[in-house]
Amino acid sequence: MGEHATALLRSYVSGGWHAPSGDGAPLHDAVTGEEVARISSEGIDMGAALEHGRRVGGPALRELTFHQRAALLKALGGHLREHRDELYALSARTGATLGDSKFDVDGGIGVLLAYASKGRRELPNDTVYVDGAVEPLSKGGTFAGRHIATPLRGVAVQINAFNFPVWGPLEKFAPAFLAGVPSLVKPASQTAYLTQKLVELIIDSGLLPEGTLQLVCGGAGDLLDHVTGQDLVSFTGSASTAQRLRAHPAIVRHSVRFNAEADSLNCSILGPDAKPGTAEFDLYVKQLVTEMTVKAGQKCTAIRRAFVPAELLDDVAEAVSARLAKTTVGNPSSEGVRMGALASLEQREEVRRSLKGLSEAGRLVFGDPEHVDVVDADAERGAFISPVLLRADDPDRAEPHEVEAFGPVSTLMPYTSTEQVVELAARGQGSLAGSVVTGDPAFARDVVLGVAPWHGRLLVLDADDAKESTGHGSPLPALVHGGPGRAGGGEEMGGIRGVLHHMQRTAVQASPKVLSAVTGQWVAGAPRQEGTHPFRKSLAELRVGDTVVAGPRRVTPEDIAHFAEFTGDTFYAHTDEAAAAANPLFGGIVAHGYLVVSFAAGLFVSPEPGPVLANYGLENLRFLTPVKPGDELTVTLTCKQITPRENADYGEVRWDTDVTNADGESVAKYDVLTLVAKEVTQ
Amino acid sequence: MGEHATALLRSYVSGGWHAPSGDGAPLHDAVTGEEVARISSEGIDMGAALEHGRRVGGPALRELTFHQRAALLKALGGHLREHRDELYALSARTGATLGDSKFDVDGGIGVLLAYASKGRRELPNDTVYVDGAVEPLSKGGTFAGRHIATPLRGVAVQINAFNFPVWGPLEKFAPAFLAGVPSLVKPASQTAYLTQKLVELIIDSGLLPEGTLQLVCGGAGDLLDHVTGQDLVSFTGSASTAQRLRAHPAIVRHSVRFNAEADSLNCSILGPDAKPGTAEFDLYVKQLVTEMTVKAGQKCTAIRRAFVPAELLDDVAEAVSARLAKTTVGNPSSEGVRMGALASLEQREEVRRSLKGLSEAGRLVFGDPEHVDVVDADAERGAFISPVLLRADDPDRAEPHEVEAFGPVSTLMPYTSTEQVVELAARGQGSLAGSVVTGDPAFARDVVLGVAPWHGRLLVLDADDAKESTGHGSPLPALVHGGPGRAGGGEEMGGIRGVLHHMQRTAVQASPKVLSAVTGQWVAGAPRQEGTHPFRKSLAELRVGDTVVAGPRRVTPEDIAHFAEFTGDTFYAHTDEAAAAANPLFGGIVAHGYLVVSFAAGLFVSPEPGPVLANYGLENLRFLTPVKPGDELTVTLTCKQITPRENADYGEVRWDTDVTNADGESVAKYDVLTLVAKEVTQ
Repeated sequence: MGEHATALLRSYVSGGWHAPSGDGAPLHDAVTGEEVARISSEGIDMGAALEHGRRVGGPALRELTFHQRAALLKALGGHLREHRDELYALSARTGATLGDSKFDVDGGIGVLLAYASKGRRELPNDTVYVDGAVEPLSKGGTFAGRHIATPLRGVAVQINAFNFPVWGPLEKFAPAFLAGVPSLVKPASQTAYLTQKLVELIIDSGLLPEGTLQLVCGGAGDLLDHVTGQDLVSFTGSASTAQRLRAHPAIVRHSVRFNAEADSLNCSILGPDAKPGTAEFDLYVKQLVTEMTVKAGQKCTAIRRAFVPAELLDDVAEAVSARLAKTTVGNPSSEGVRMGALASLEQREEVRRSLKGLSEAGRLVFGDPEHVDVVDADAERGAFISPVLLRADDPDRAEPHEVEAFGPVSTLMPYTSTEQVVELAARGQGSLAGSVVTGDPAFARDVVLGVAPWHGRLLVLDADDAKESTGHGSPLPALVHGGPGRAGGGEEMGGIRGVLHHMQRTAVQASPKVLSAVTGQWVAGAPRQEGTHPFRKSLAELRVGDTVVAGPRRVTPEDIAHFAEFTGDTFYAHTDEAAAAANPLFGGIVAHGYLVVSFAAGLFVSPEPGPVLANYGLENLRFLTPVKPGDELTVTLTCKQITPRENADYGEVRWDTDVTNADGESVAKYDVLTLVAKEVTQ
Repeated sequence: MGEHATALLRSYVSGGWHAPSGDGAPLHDAVTGEEVARISSEGIDMGAALEHGRRVGGPALRELTFHQRAALLKALGGHLREHRDELYALSARTGATLGDSKFDVDGGIGVLLAYASKGRRELPNDTVYVDGAVEPLSKGGTFAGRHIATPLRGVAVQINAFNFPVWGPLEKFAPAFLAGVPSLVKPASQTAYLTQKLVELIIDSGLLPEGTLQLVCGGAGDLLDHVTGQDLVSFTGSASTAQRLRAHPAIVRHSVRFNAEADSLNCSILGPDAKPGTAEFDLYVKQLVTEMTVKAGQKCTAIRRAFVPAELLDDVAEAVSARLAKTTVGNPSSEGVRMGALASLEQREEVRRSLKGLSEAGRLVFGDPEHVDVVDADAERGAFISPVLLRADDPDRAEPHEVEAFGPVSTLMPYTSTEQVVELAARGQGSLAGSVVTGDPAFARDVVLGVAPWHGRLLVLDADDAKESTGHGSPLPALVHGGPGRAGGGEEMGGIRGVLHHMQRTAVQASPKVLSAVTGQWVAGAPRQEGTHPFRKSLAELRVGDTVVAGPRRVTPEDIAHFAEFTGDTFYAHTDEAAAAANPLFGGIVAHGYLVVSFAAGLFVSPEPGPVLANYGLENLRFLTPVKPGDELTVTLTCKQITPRENADYGEVRWDTDVTNADGESVAKYDVLTLVAKEVTQ
């Protein structure tokens, strides 16, 4: 080391690349021990960087709609995909095999693309998110409430762990960006050279508005002293650091949103049905070995506690050991190597220390913490360690539930009943992920519902889903990532939930007119504009509140009888006066609900070709008052929400639909969904 | 004081009433200064109380469904309503007028009833809450995800403020109870005698399972040392105490969910349009006076900062002063008294101290902090103070944005532009509530969207909603209560959101079969059972997954033409071959969507009287593939979710409906909603 001078990692702050003053600290190749780079954050004005995000990045982001931000995430994902080989190459120096690198790099790109897709499909093409339904707050309807979510006006400070230098920053960045909140990324030093490369690729792409992504390589310095109630801090790493940050004076003083993902003592449970010879037994063994060896076990979701029925303990120990014996350890770039190195020699010391603690309660079944045979590498200069399987025959001992060895290490423990294994799982005091491997849905249900309060994510693995399962250890953008208690109490991703964590939810109370003005969505009771039939208007002309009132049309007994005969829907309430009279809800013949909505469509339709291309759906239909023969129907259709598509010449329009009878009572209410052209081409 | 010995308040812990050892500290009548009671928590085993909640209360609650818990809340609300006079009587001793007491007592009962109603309408009649849609995780459909929420297995520790001794505990208790989490209530000492009375009434009602509500009167002692990651701590009170609790070692160590509602420097903004003579000008003045004087200004939501257009400052100052001059202060039980006393003499000292700070930036416009004329009381022995209006002509001074006088005190400040008033509002660094009084929806929109990131709730008051508005200072069960930053960063109530804050959200990944078993809701891809038509089965017989497949039925050109003619829906895509061919989505005549769902109903119907009483609605209908003349439709209807009603002889059944064409493509998917009898009575 130090044979040659390596470069100092630069940070990207306040609109430019910053080269630190001073010499910095060396970072070493996990495989060879060579120096890769040096790191320091000396000279960075942390307060100014945060202010840059708030003053430059935030406003730029907030000018974009959710769909526009989603489009940028998609473009960014495509750009990084083109450059992933550069990331793989550097990733190998962290000790990662190509498989490990794909997990990190492709996983991170996958989060960008998933958020791009969710943003387009599940968020409005607008800058305000409307959360939940209108809450009626008054009898007369002049006063109502609705929740909106708006982006926090600060910066999402993201302090990442060393084990996922690409996925880690991207899984925090994507939801923040989609929310409209700029990010400041601080990677763990050990592997910061890879994150720096990632940020370089992103900045060089020119895709992101300036100030929406900043990078601090090196120590955090006084960064957290500058956070305010509009900033957020997300941390991934050890439980002890999480505690220290959570109690940071500025975080406490300003009630700063603090999200922690801490390593946890995740468990995997084998069902009593999964005896040797079953598919589930093999799946359990295979998954345990995978979780132990992928990323050399340096995953905060890895299985640390493996619970198996007492009578199957010997079988599992044997099968896992046999499989581990076939796991080639060594230079991750070499052919046939299945497990690379830990991220650093310090990390190996840490694992060995933890193993001493675990050995108090369990005996070694496989592996020697002090020795491993390696391929194409020096086992001592590189941070190599053998996979280590322990067995604790007394599952009530404290150590396996409290001591985490952050490497290729798991402890097997026996259980004898569902109640017991649920209690044992809970002794982890909160986990990111857990799994149950069983072919018995009832056992799966009992365990899942029993251990759910201690878990952020639970996988049930069986012969049905094994082929397509993404496995115990993989957080997915659509699912929440984070667990209670020891796991940090945080929640990230989970689709749009992760976006909303970056926004302030605000209850707005107002008249329907003002609620409509604030949310951009028409609310019942707000003014309607009649005039040209709104189906004749393109998106360019259409306004929220545009209305057509059509009818009345009388529903005759013959209509009902004919509709029954024509459609085949001869339900007695439509066809048999005596039987209908006995129905507690109707008390006589009623029109079909489908007849009511069909007649309504006949009333509000505008038949000639025009901007409305199709009715693609219907939502929240409720039949509120029975329609009796002779009733007259009137329909009021009002433009409720307009969602132009970014990359098409049309968009979605949602119409509030209210069908009333001659007494003015609503007989049916629903939303009609249409596709409408942006411009009329004649 | 001390002329006669008063009773020591008892606590209700570990299944019984606990009389403290020792003498305790005296609590004084806010009006007369007489001793009301003494208080101490000496001798309470706090750890045992928490464990009692976890071991006795939690399991009892978790055996009940959401609907059963909701029914208990409703009964409890009714019970307390019958006893509210007893609560009013004691409430007067806290300095509250009858109006104030109703705000507290009736407001609290209102929260119970609102949660009872929301629980019944918005939650399943089950013990598991399913959160959000199925997340497809695989191409083949054998692996999918879904989020569930299960109650935390600990206790909700609720530390309340002195100002709402009834509403405070109830607004925290109701969502916790509905979630399935037992409560331990610790009221502020000053007014704990009223909370003790409340808990006495609740316990004596015998309505609640033992262990679901406990009460600690007096100091918290080592209570928080015993909390774990499954417990929650909710605090309402001062920002400084909130900070101390947030950094408590046990809370930090176990990532305990900590929710704070802290007093904040809430603002109210008058619009530039609201000149003297407008309805909004009067509304602003009246609301400001109300907020200053209700509960003698001891509301964490009260208006502390009143922003008015600079040119209207004199007018507002004059109008508010005139109205304040008519506010009679005195014994809250006396006729004509509009404002009672502060809760204690200490509280008055605190307010006077804060007023000294505020006076640095503003001058007194109304009121003398050291003197007030009172009716039927001794102004010195009782904790009386005059309403005090200040005016700070320089709104950039720090004090009005930082110093809170927790009494009948507000500061008027001028502003000159929308941008400026948004910035000034933000200087409160996070508020529970804000209001805008304007007749201009565009101004309302700009202000609401501008200040939303700093607010938990915003009211827009105008001539339209004034009559029905619940006012600036009233948190409502359907809306979130809590604000960012200085307001504590918490969120309570907000309807079902407040229930979910007490539950752990867990992502479950499994095969459709197992997902169905875990959630109790049928998921696409899970097994279906065919046999007896499921419409012939009562709720007692029906099972999730019961299915009928019906069809095929050919859709003829004549059907389409006839449907168009019969319903009047002559949209060109159904009637005009040439025009339909030009439609970019269809390329030819297509059947009406309403024809497709009508024919589907004709296929799956079971006409004779039976357990299915009505089809009351339809949800999430999407037309996925155009139906062309000649296409054959088959419908598959599968029982997806069963929700028996607690107090009716029927329940709701949701049916997954999939209409396919001869190629097996889905042409329409939706949920049919029906009412089904619990038993078949023949």
